[in-house]
Amino acid sequence: MRLRNKPWAKELIAQHPELIQVQPSHFHPNFEKAQPLRLEIGTGKGQFIYTMAQQHPNMNFIALEMQESALAVLLKQQVATPLPNLQLLVANADHLVDLFSDDQVSEIYLNFSDPWPKTRHEKRRLTYASFLTQYRRILTPTGVLQLKTDNRHFFEYSLMSMNHFGMHFAELSLDLHHDTTAWAMTNVTTEYEDKFAAKGQPIYGVRATFESPLD
Amino acid sequence: MRLRNKPWAKELIAQHPELIQVQPSHFHPNFEKAQPLRLEIGTGKGQFIYTMAQQHPNMNFIALEMQESALAVLLKQQVATPLPNLQLLVANADHLVDLFSDDQVSEIYLNFSDPWPKTRHEKRRLTYASFLTQYRRILTPTGVLQLKTDNRHFFEYSLMSMNHFGMHFAELSLDLHHDTTAWAMTNVTTEYEDKFAAKGQPIYGVRATFESPLD
Repeated sequence: MRLRNKPWAKELIAQHPELIQVQPSHFHPNFEKAQPLRLEIGTGKGQFIYTMAQQHPNMNFIALEMQESALAVLLKQQVATPLPNLQLLVANADHLVDLFSDDQVSEIYLNFSDPWPKTRHEKRRLTYASFLTQYRRILTPTGVLQLKTDNRHFFEYSLMSMNHFGMHFAELSLDLHHDTTAWAMTNVTTEYEDKFAAKGQPIYGVRATFESPLD
Repeated sequence: MRLRNKPWAKELIAQHPELIQVQPSHFHPNFEKAQPLRLEIGTGKGQFIYTMAQQHPNMNFIALEMQESALAVLLKQQVATPLPNLQLLVANADHLVDLFSDDQVSEIYLNFSDPWPKTRHEKRRLTYASFLTQYRRILTPTGVLQLKTDNRHFFEYSLMSMNHFGMHFAELSLDLHHDTTAWAMTNVTTEYEDKFAAKGQPIYGVRATFESPLD
């Protein structure tokens, strides 16, 4: 998602180092409590992660997004109604293993990531093997990678990539909004997801781990 | 698929032991040539397998179906216009390892199999682990299991089951009839598939192997 540049974004960000970190070499937690950490990669304007943080006060959440002008929208909300278990992070997903320590994260969310449809851009897809390698490092051994998308080819690609990486599918839905599973019933949507689902198109989703429960 | 009983079926079957075997303890090939063997499980009336056998004279095909009255429709066609590389087999898929030798089959087709939606019937689904165990035995090491279905929950289940079994996805489509891959462009349809796709609903498909190409 590309947003118009917001002239006020830089200043707001500079005023709130307690809420948002900009391209640090390592992420230094600034949460009220030490509790399990969940990370969204590509937060956009933040409807999903803000709602998740509201609903789960017993967990900490990080909203990672490389576009300052998108994340500044969430920052505004967080300044107005701060949640002590939500931190914002302007960073590129290429360097997750520098930003986070091994086993630091219990769940990673990829929501409607850029599908990068051209084959020559495969390496940029957030489910390309090099990204999975990073997720495996920063996730706890039983940690979950959760992905939602409306893009059929990106979902097909992601299932293949996870399968080839040896990941274990814990849940899989080809129409999450018409399921009655616990995941579907508690699904927190993104702004984009609301718009897209209103057209009646399916939302695809998968939850997968790097170790099978039997290992 | 349930068909009305056909009074002529039993007699026609009895007249053509050279074309059809009924619940043998082991399948004894009766092909003109020794060449790679492909097996459809749940043939129904046989549009798919007959067309495949026509298109691939350099391979042998077996149409396996437990309902005599369905397979008798294919038998009629095979009597009228015989293909030397097609054999019919009335049998239950529960005993594949008795019917076939290890490594005898190079490709298995599951087309629009009964989804058995109730959880208590999971063991009857043709992608339940006990069936995958049999497929692995009778397939060659690089052999392929190809599945097509219109049933979302059966497809979700099958992907999970194959993934948990350690199978490797070679191809995956969530809308095979709108793809432009080699598989999609050469896809041979079943009777049911034609009717279903005409409604504009997606056909799901996966091709998977028991060994990854990297093993």
